[in-house]
Amino acid sequence: MTPFETIKNGTLEIISEPDLRQKLDSGKKLKIKFGADPSAPDLHLGHTVVLRKLREFQDLGHEVIFLIGDFTAGIGDPTGKSETRKPLSREQIEQNASTYQNQVFKILDKSKTQVVYNSQWINKLTPVDFIKLMSQITVAQTLEREDFKKRYTEGRSISMHEFMYPLLQGYDSVAIQADVELGGTDQKFNMLVGRDLQASAGQEPQNIVIMPILEGLDGINKMSKSLGNHVGITEPPNEMFGKLMSLPDELMPRYYQLLTDLTFDKNEHPREAKEKLAKFVITQYHSAKDAESAAENFKNVFANNGIPDNIETLGAVPFLDLPLAKLLVAAKLSASNGEAKRDIQSGAVKVNGQKVSDPQFLLITEKTDKAEFIIQVGKRKFVKLN
Amino acid sequence: MTPFETIKNGTLEIISEPDLRQKLDSGKKLKIKFGADPSAPDLHLGHTVVLRKLREFQDLGHEVIFLIGDFTAGIGDPTGKSETRKPLSREQIEQNASTYQNQVFKILDKSKTQVVYNSQWINKLTPVDFIKLMSQITVAQTLEREDFKKRYTEGRSISMHEFMYPLLQGYDSVAIQADVELGGTDQKFNMLVGRDLQASAGQEPQNIVIMPILEGLDGINKMSKSLGNHVGITEPPNEMFGKLMSLPDELMPRYYQLLTDLTFDKNEHPREAKEKLAKFVITQYHSAKDAESAAENFKNVFANNGIPDNIETLGAVPFLDLPLAKLLVAAKLSASNGEAKRDIQSGAVKVNGQKVSDPQFLLITEKTDKAEFIIQVGKRKFVKLN
Repeated sequence: MTPFETIKNGTLEIISEPDLRQKLDSGKKLKIKFGADPSAPDLHLGHTVVLRKLREFQDLGHEVIFLIGDFTAGIGDPTGKSETRKPLSREQIEQNASTYQNQVFKILDKSKTQVVYNSQWINKLTPVDFIKLMSQITVAQTLEREDFKKRYTEGRSISMHEFMYPLLQGYDSVAIQADVELGGTDQKFNMLVGRDLQASAGQEPQNIVIMPILEGLDGINKMSKSLGNHVGITEPPNEMFGKLMSLPDELMPRYYQLLTDLTFDKNEHPREAKEKLAKFVITQYHSAKDAESAAENFKNVFANNGIPDNIETLGAVPFLDLPLAKLLVAAKLSASNGEAKRDIQSGAVKVNGQKVSDPQFLLITEKTDKAEFIIQVGKRKFVKLN
Repeated sequence: MTPFETIKNGTLEIISEPDLRQKLDSGKKLKIKFGADPSAPDLHLGHTVVLRKLREFQDLGHEVIFLIGDFTAGIGDPTGKSETRKPLSREQIEQNASTYQNQVFKILDKSKTQVVYNSQWINKLTPVDFIKLMSQITVAQTLEREDFKKRYTEGRSISMHEFMYPLLQGYDSVAIQADVELGGTDQKFNMLVGRDLQASAGQEPQNIVIMPILEGLDGINKMSKSLGNHVGITEPPNEMFGKLMSLPDELMPRYYQLLTDLTFDKNEHPREAKEKLAKFVITQYHSAKDAESAAENFKNVFANNGIPDNIETLGAVPFLDLPLAKLLVAAKLSASNGEAKRDIQSGAVKVNGQKVSDPQFLLITEKTDKAEFIIQVGKRKFVKLN
């Protein structure tokens, strides 16, 4: 494949193909811009679609400018309406950025990555610069952005400062003199603003590489932590394996293309194809050894009536004296009392294969001739007490 | 009249009446904000409607904050599309501001006026301040402003920076801690933004006094220099008198209310009522003596078949040798050759009462037994050559 063919593979859209081909063939070391939001540093496979494409640019000799959008994160939601978008302190931003980088460098080549913070140049803008920046785009243009259009026509409010963010993201491209910017479809508008601003500033407009948005495990919505249909890249190998084995068959060609270097074989048995996919992913984010043992464990769970053979064993003390909800927390099967109660009440908790729906249930009352209890939460969390 | 009744007289709307009444009755010296655009320093009677109301506040003991909007004037039209809104240099702004003040202090009490420039505080805003300012208003709210709404629905473009200006004007109120802001109906939206921003900043929101927009001499459009239906406050007394005598009768009660301290008497003969109005206005912007002689001159023009009896007399040399267009410029009847040609071609120029439509016309060819020529441009400009 030519460099351009390599880059084009798996993309949704390139603006514009001839320009990008020319840049890639020019022999010039290109600056490939990628913007990251340091407010949510946990990466899942959805994020890796763009990151893998960035890595391909690096393998072709180009430099990734990994841009931490700390200016915006430092403001949060200035309307104060959103609890989840509180302004982050400098320490939080740096800690998040470093967490983010630890994960990103499982995919990117550190030696070909430059990390920059956009507060560096945005904080230097004067009021006059701001007005001039704003004069380069019209209200109607901005209202054409799909999410704004939808909110406006539905009568939901859009704060004026939200209109500013595409301009600031576009200005980032001017500041770093980006040759190419990568993003998902939801970033297309902002990336196009970057092209306009670069042209006004006398720069050659960046090319845009738009990657598809990865569907989550439900096969319907985009992968997202808040929808719970995600596979986090720091999740334990067994979790990853189990989740990927639950993937709907029809998503496999897409996951193969966007998440692996493998070629999908439609004649292969779906279970084997999924196993290969899961092993590839686990090898990338953990190791080949982890991938093997996760596959092994998964088979054992299946063979053993859904109960794996290598579950952790805890002593009977102090667990047997605790009401079930508290026991789940003490055994680290649930993160909190509230979560434990919800797990129990939703029917996700089994004791020796039997659903228990009372959070106050005491195992000790059951202890007769049985030597042990197997406590199970959901499909993949187990402990043994004896 | 109580202070509140004095202020309310002639206003279109007060937001809100009880609050303003309370402030006026509190005995506190109030800060009355008035914003002026230093890009067009020529005042006409339309501007004096608000200025006269400001003077009433001063006569009640309050202080006018005369705010020069130099920040915006220093930017001009950053899209570069408008020739008429070029950025002004510091010198130009200061010169315009001083011209403006010379005119304004024919109405305002200088000792109770503080002149401030808004670049002082706006230039200190950081990018974070800008974003926070913008977060306090929504796109939908701003699009409700009448002129924006119209342009948006008609598909005419609105640059994003234009959306910023109401916020900056509103922020001016915060910066000077205005108690009251005065403006025309076209300023209502911006003044309301000021209230919102003051409330967010923990200040008591300013009250708003909205004055009606004065119709021009055509009785239809608002008074505006560009429509040519205006009476400038620096125009010579004779011009003022002639223009005001051309006022449609039905506008008189309004001109009386908004431009004078006189009471309109509907039983008076319209010509006498207009004469009184014109004399009042000329007395305010020139002197009582000027008013008298303008009235005298006007009568003579009428008596003398439309030609005043005290027109300036120039010698025959060099004028009689010039083609008519050049003659008009040399005699200062037209400002430029181009204007002179337009005046002639539009039929506004008469020689001894006869229209002449050829810019190349030579008076010398006409000089026979006549001792003099009277050259007339429009209704009110004359010279005599002999």
